Amino acid sequence: MFARFQRGAMRLTRIEAFSDGVFAIVVTLLVLELRVPTLKDHASAAELGRQLIELAPKFLSWLISFIIVCKFWLNHHHVLSLARHADYALVWLNSIFLMGQSFIPFPTAVMGEYAGNPLAVSLFGCVFALNTLMFLALQAYIVRVLIKPELAGEQDPHFFVKGLVGPLSYLTGAAVAWVSVHAAFLVYLLTPLFYITPRDSKTHG
Amino acid sequence: MFARFQRGAMRLTRIEAFSDGVFAIVVTLLVLELRVPTLKDHASAAELGRQLIELAPKFLSWLISFIIVCKFWLNHHHVLSLARHADYALVWLNSIFLMGQSFIPFPTAVMGEYAGNPLAVSLFGCVFALNTLMFLALQAYIVRVLIKPELAGEQDPHFFVKGLVGPLSYLTGAAVAWVSVHAAFLVYLLTPLFYITPRDSKTHG
Amino acid sequence: MFARFQRGAMRLTRIEAFSDGVFAIVVTLLVLELRVPTLKDHASAAELGRQLIELAPKFLSWLISFIIVCKFWLNHHHVLSLARHADYALVWLNSIFLMGQSFIPFPTAVMGEYAGNPLAVSLFGCVFALNTLMFLALQAYIVRVLIKPELAGEQDPHFFVKGLVGPLSYLTGAAVAWVSVHAAFLVYLLTPLFYITPRDSKTHG
Amino acid sequence: MFARFQRGAMRLTRIEAFSDGVFAIVVTLLVLELRVPTLKDHASAAELGRQLIELAPKFLSWLISFIIVCKFWLNHHHVLSLARHADYALVWLNSIFLMGQSFIPFPTAVMGEYAGNPLAVSLFGCVFALNTLMFLALQAYIVRVLIKPELAGEQDPHFFVKGLVGPLSYLTGAAVAWVSVHAAFLVYLLTPLFYITPRDSKTHG
Repeated sequence: MFARFQRGAMRLTRIEAFSDGVFAIVVTLLVLELRVPTLKDHASAAELGRQLIELAPKFLSWLISFIIVCKFWLNHHHVLSLARHADYALVWLNSIFLMGQSFIPFPTAVMGEYAGNPLAVSLFGCVFALNTLMFLALQAYIVRVLIKPELAGEQDPHFFVKGLVGPLSYLTGAAVAWVSVHAAFLVYLLTPLFYITPRDSKTHG
Repeated sequence: MFARFQRGAMRLTRIEAFSDGVFAIVVTLLVLELRVPTLKDHASAAELGRQLIELAPKFLSWLISFIIVCKFWLNHHHVLSLARHADYALVWLNSIFLMGQSFIPFPTAVMGEYAGNPLAVSLFGCVFALNTLMFLALQAYIVRVLIKPELAGEQDPHFFVKGLVGPLSYLTGAAVAWVSVHAAFLVYLLTPLFYITPRDSKTHG
Repeated sequence: MFARFQRGAMRLTRIEAFSDGVFAIVVTLLVLELRVPTLKDHASAAELGRQLIELAPKFLSWLISFIIVCKFWLNHHHVLSLARHADYALVWLNSIFLMGQSFIPFPTAVMGEYAGNPLAVSLFGCVFALNTLMFLALQAYIVRVLIKPELAGEQDPHFFVKGLVGPLSYLTGAAVAWVSVHAAFLVYLLTPLFYITPRDSKTHG
Repeated sequence: MFARFQRGAMRLTRIEAFSDGVFAIVVTLLVLELRVPTLKDHASAAELGRQLIELAPKFLSWLISFIIVCKFWLNHHHVLSLARHADYALVWLNSIFLMGQSFIPFPTAVMGEYAGNPLAVSLFGCVFALNTLMFLALQAYIVRVLIKPELAGEQDPHFFVKGLVGPLSYLTGAAVAWVSVHAAFLVYLLTPLFYITPRDSKTHG
């Protein structure tokens, strides 16, 4: 049964094309939650200004999600470049990871709409913790099973444990949200900065 | 007249790019049906929690459709890799198949909204049965007309009859929906698991 | 001034990738106009059935637009394969053509919503006539300026005049709409069938 | 710390694929703001005609944004072709630039909805000024750090200062909007015409 997933040597290019499509659509759909405000006086700059300021939590949610998805894209790009080919297990781990990515507009919209609601802000952190775990599963499979022979020696054996810092940080934000939503926003904003470049072991720059 | 469709040797890459685009957009659009709930008390975690739980049928519809579309993507990837080149007949069979794929967000949304309505749940199964038939038509054309010479001997001659298990399973779900919508959901969830890897005849893994 | 547009030898691959993205999104967005109907009795199959039947004009508009956009995609694929490279004039002719393509969801939605309104049905035909003209302009530029030397002799010198049959047919539909919207739907449905394969001059199949 | 961003030699193809996806989705999403008007008399061509004419500011906003995004796409295409490879700094400058591009549907929709509101029209210019600055940052990084050796001598050393004409023109439009929104629309429409082809220094056509 498990051997079935080890078959199916495939070109990585279509997996990358499909993934890039999903990433590109996710980051672009995020903006659809920024709805045009409804004005009583269409020509009033003051009213529009007030309404735009009230959209601030939505802008911030959009910004955080955009940066995190770009970070996922970059790390995905890096991890797929380690694989010598693709098999069915990789395709399904990748699909489940992309399912998590494509879900992101929902918690982003919920947090943008109800920025003062602890559950809304907490949900955001939980979803991103789960997404990071799904990414680590994809990475672990590639590093353990599909790694290019010439790169095998260069991988940090502790990448998985180190990678758990990401989900833990998002879960911390999710817990903090029940005390202070502002603090949670800050945690979410700072977390991706630790991962702004992929965690490869090529320390010789 | 028919000879006209046999012409037009084309690179498969643009057909793959167009198809990957459609697949990526379909899976990502599915999430747009998960609308942000409307709360009376914006800060109430309890009210948001209740509303999110009520979205459960929509989450489940989204999950089932996402997995099935990924399965179609994987099988599409596999089948196109069998063709030595493309012709106009392939392009049109592929376009009609993609038309079916791009329609998926509609029955998914209908089933998510009216999960207790037998017609809504039944419609979902009928659409996926039809999509599987369109895929089988594409596969049959490639295997019979455009197969790479070196792969011709490896194909299972009964792939078409075996492939009909898919549509039959979805139609069974569509019929079962009139007795129990829960049973139909279960059928829809289990059906793709039988097709989680392409039905190729390369049993030497 | 004009020489400026003749510069900029570019790879055609990114133009194709951008175009394929636009085509893929246009065909997939079309389905968003198929909104989930609002039911009084959520569990009533009869009510949902009646509502789905009332969506028939929307399904038909979606179907016609989908087929026509696929036809444009196929012809675009063919015409770009004739060019030896790209220049800025090609990029802008292509961009204006894609602007027309990306506009298609609007007249499709208007015709789907108001299928009995002669202006709505007429607008659809006018937009597609204009789109076909923009495609002919792109084709004419490629055939006259950028054609691969080995293909130059094979082109039908009358392709432009013959190509005008397309816009004329759509405009006929647009005129007929003021007498009978049903007849106009029929014209729109039949027109792409004449162009189902690209009009190349390689008659030796 | 900064050296970390100079690492990560990557293929440019996936960066282009991701960027092309974002560009394609942005230009196609713009049309979603053109909503089907609500008619009292569904069959009335006169009422639909009046409603379509009232959509004129939305059509114009859509047209201006479409042309500007295509211009950005063309210039992006040109600038990325100058780079010999990609590094993490390029990826992040590109991601921030794409964040600006994906934001464009929002100010476009605001200006289309409230074409007579000086803040709405002014916001549009400010967003495009910022987008052009983000593009110049990307260009400056490529030209200074990643330029292909054989192209290094051909670059106009004053490209950055010359490029500032773009943001200044958009900001002029944003200021003019407070006096006359019509004049601002005209500035926005004319600005991209100066940049219709990339500012390369290859004057030998």
